[in-house]
Amino acid sequence: VDSPFRLQTWLSTFSACLHSSSCRLFFPEDPIKIVRGQGQYMYDEQGAEYIDCINNVAHVGHCHPLVVQAAHEQNQVLNTNSRYLHDNIVDFAQRLSETLPEELCVFYFLNSGSEANDLALRLARQYTGHWDVVVLDHAYHGHLSSLIDISPYKFRNLDGQKEWVHVAPLPDTYRGLYREDHPNPAEAYASEVKRVVSSAQEQGRQIAAFFAESLPSVGGQIIPPAGYFPEVAEHIRKAGGVFVADEIQVGFGRVGKHFWAFQLQGEDFVPDIVTMGKSIGNGHPVACVATTQAVARAFEATGVEYFNTFGGSPVSCAVGLAVLDVLEKEQLQAHAACVGSFLMELLGQQKAKHPIIGDIRGVGLFIGVDLIKDEATRTPATEEADYLVSRLKENYILLSTDGPGRNVLKFKPPMCFSLDNVQHVVAKLDAILTDMEEKVRSCETLR
Amino acid sequence: VDSPFRLQTWLSTFSACLHSSSCRLFFPEDPIKIVRGQGQYMYDEQGAEYIDCINNVAHVGHCHPLVVQAAHEQNQVLNTNSRYLHDNIVDFAQRLSETLPEELCVFYFLNSGSEANDLALRLARQYTGHWDVVVLDHAYHGHLSSLIDISPYKFRNLDGQKEWVHVAPLPDTYRGLYREDHPNPAEAYASEVKRVVSSAQEQGRQIAAFFAESLPSVGGQIIPPAGYFPEVAEHIRKAGGVFVADEIQVGFGRVGKHFWAFQLQGEDFVPDIVTMGKSIGNGHPVACVATTQAVARAFEATGVEYFNTFGGSPVSCAVGLAVLDVLEKEQLQAHAACVGSFLMELLGQQKAKHPIIGDIRGVGLFIGVDLIKDEATRTPATEEADYLVSRLKENYILLSTDGPGRNVLKFKPPMCFSLDNVQHVVAKLDAILTDMEEKVRSCETLR
Repeated sequence: VDSPFRLQTWLSTFSACLHSSSCRLFFPEDPIKIVRGQGQYMYDEQGAEYIDCINNVAHVGHCHPLVVQAAHEQNQVLNTNSRYLHDNIVDFAQRLSETLPEELCVFYFLNSGSEANDLALRLARQYTGHWDVVVLDHAYHGHLSSLIDISPYKFRNLDGQKEWVHVAPLPDTYRGLYREDHPNPAEAYASEVKRVVSSAQEQGRQIAAFFAESLPSVGGQIIPPAGYFPEVAEHIRKAGGVFVADEIQVGFGRVGKHFWAFQLQGEDFVPDIVTMGKSIGNGHPVACVATTQAVARAFEATGVEYFNTFGGSPVSCAVGLAVLDVLEKEQLQAHAACVGSFLMELLGQQKAKHPIIGDIRGVGLFIGVDLIKDEATRTPATEEADYLVSRLKENYILLSTDGPGRNVLKFKPPMCFSLDNVQHVVAKLDAILTDMEEKVRSCETLR
Repeated sequence: VDSPFRLQTWLSTFSACLHSSSCRLFFPEDPIKIVRGQGQYMYDEQGAEYIDCINNVAHVGHCHPLVVQAAHEQNQVLNTNSRYLHDNIVDFAQRLSETLPEELCVFYFLNSGSEANDLALRLARQYTGHWDVVVLDHAYHGHLSSLIDISPYKFRNLDGQKEWVHVAPLPDTYRGLYREDHPNPAEAYASEVKRVVSSAQEQGRQIAAFFAESLPSVGGQIIPPAGYFPEVAEHIRKAGGVFVADEIQVGFGRVGKHFWAFQLQGEDFVPDIVTMGKSIGNGHPVACVATTQAVARAFEATGVEYFNTFGGSPVSCAVGLAVLDVLEKEQLQAHAACVGSFLMELLGQQKAKHPIIGDIRGVGLFIGVDLIKDEATRTPATEEADYLVSRLKENYILLSTDGPGRNVLKFKPPMCFSLDNVQHVVAKLDAILTDMEEKVRSCETLR
């Protein structure tokens, strides 16, 4: 294993190679034209097969025949709005409720995770009578105006921070304020939320909600320390706000142990609002907001109806039901736990071998590989991550990066991702990292 | 024909009947459970066939086999996000561009009309550097936070009007400020917009956009006088804002004469942004924003990407293309013109016969029947409209009301609505109105 010093040397040399036209290691990538998808595979025009490690929308696998069939059967019969009664919407709500704590028993159906988070915001404001929102740093909650306002990942590059938005530190125990060596990072990060709330209140602001992805993804595949959410919820509820768990990227069994990622935070923890999207329809535009009767009643009390043209249509609900059927029938939640553990294990071996790997974190099939330039500073190895991703693409493996430093490889594949896929992908990763190390050494020799 | 006086008498008697438990004319409606749809028909659990006069989402007919087939074929092959190249998205944008003025050549694909209007708002603000919006009174532009803010129909019942929203009078020549007797209502209503803009500017506000449905529907199936939009656009552009035409309810050939309803306003009139939804996917969640290169470039210049998980997927685009194919193949635009004219003609005959009908207005298959209590005051006959709709439902005709007074019967049926349907529906309408008149007479006799 290379020492920290050696690591830094080869990485800085490597970066120089990347930008030197003579070395030609880094080339502008051609975008891929994908024409077909099946299970965890995608196929380009030439018929080349790619392993898809990133598409958490194709949750039960690209073009799953049971989901496709369910859509087709319902499309042939009826697809209209929820102004008419239909069994599918009732069945779908019923099935979803079986996966959730019983308090979360009211469901709104929509077309996208963004629509779901926007409705969550409206529900929170109506219920609490407050306006302000606390979010985690680097968070992304959607592409709508209202959500860009609560997404530091976006608003830092646009209009800036609104006076009603308050940013708490990301509970990142690898790069954040409190790290793996802290005795109680959950409490420490929750105290930061409390501090943010108090400071807002001192300015006369009132908190409507705390929004967080149950596992912050754009933030860099972060696994908040267990117990963090319950403590945050306590602080937020004391301030009169509600807790919104954004499960758009991570729900529906992806974390393996549980059906919902917020359940990793403690068996008894219940958010006030849960938002769902992406995976819920395996690519069909469906989304959902689940909440308590109390929140729903406050929303109804305005007397203003909530109507969503496509939301909760018989087709959307048929598709959602089929996804739940497949998850059960193919035991994909248990599968994600098993395959995810194996991937974590093999990646752990790679970490021991390749010093560019600073951290491996994850649960189920939601895993991040944090690439660093230096063990001491943990400086993000952004260009190296980018290069690695393009080399993997040449090897027909689709992976991408995330995190503020765009240096975290993110694994969030279709849930049918197999043990063989794990072995194949990690072997390629190993080979490319080894090759990168060798190229650096030969670059050094040439100098 | 009854005199205004007689009309008022029987209507006030009729209203009394509605609320009197002895007369039992008005009963709380059971919601319908629809299990099947085909063309312009919907079927309930017992197999009863309803004529659908209102569903403008099922644009080319419920469950149109070509659209269903297109969705199924693409669903079986690939449904993923627009981070990969795909022919469908290019083809769909190309086909849409052929229907629009050439300036509108950049397309964003999304999942709902609401998402489209929210993006339009972002585009307008980014391009102009201004924040404020001028909207028409009673307008509805969607269910998202940002759109409720610009929808007087909603915000009047909720948080009230934001300081950045300015409301111009609805260009309603039947009930509005300037009516059918005004020499130039287009200019007069446009001057009102100019006045609203000036007043906003005097308060130091800057206008980003004017939003209007090309034919305001929630406002009461309004047909703005031709020439109104071009004049408004002039005032708005002079103030540094852009013109957004919301075609979500009325686009895609519904108006018959033209493919887009804004084209009724003058052949040369070009909005800066056009938003599409509902009909575009015949029920599949698809939406689109079309704009100019200048607007799109300003948006790109922020460097912040716009990504929409489901938007522009191969399936959504395949469905959109199929809808365009069917519109062409079945010549539904010309059909809408023909059937709509016939419906206008027959409704006109009813107006001459039944004094409760105050106004018939429309174009193509977008028609409003304005029911009044009194010819002089044009007071909305709200309860009578409600009663009429429930009687029509008993007769297996699905119609609904709109407008601030909820007294305007709105016709916006699937585009395959036939001449036979017109005759049947108008005959039933005639029979029910006649029966209502008779009931009132017998109520009067009883007193």
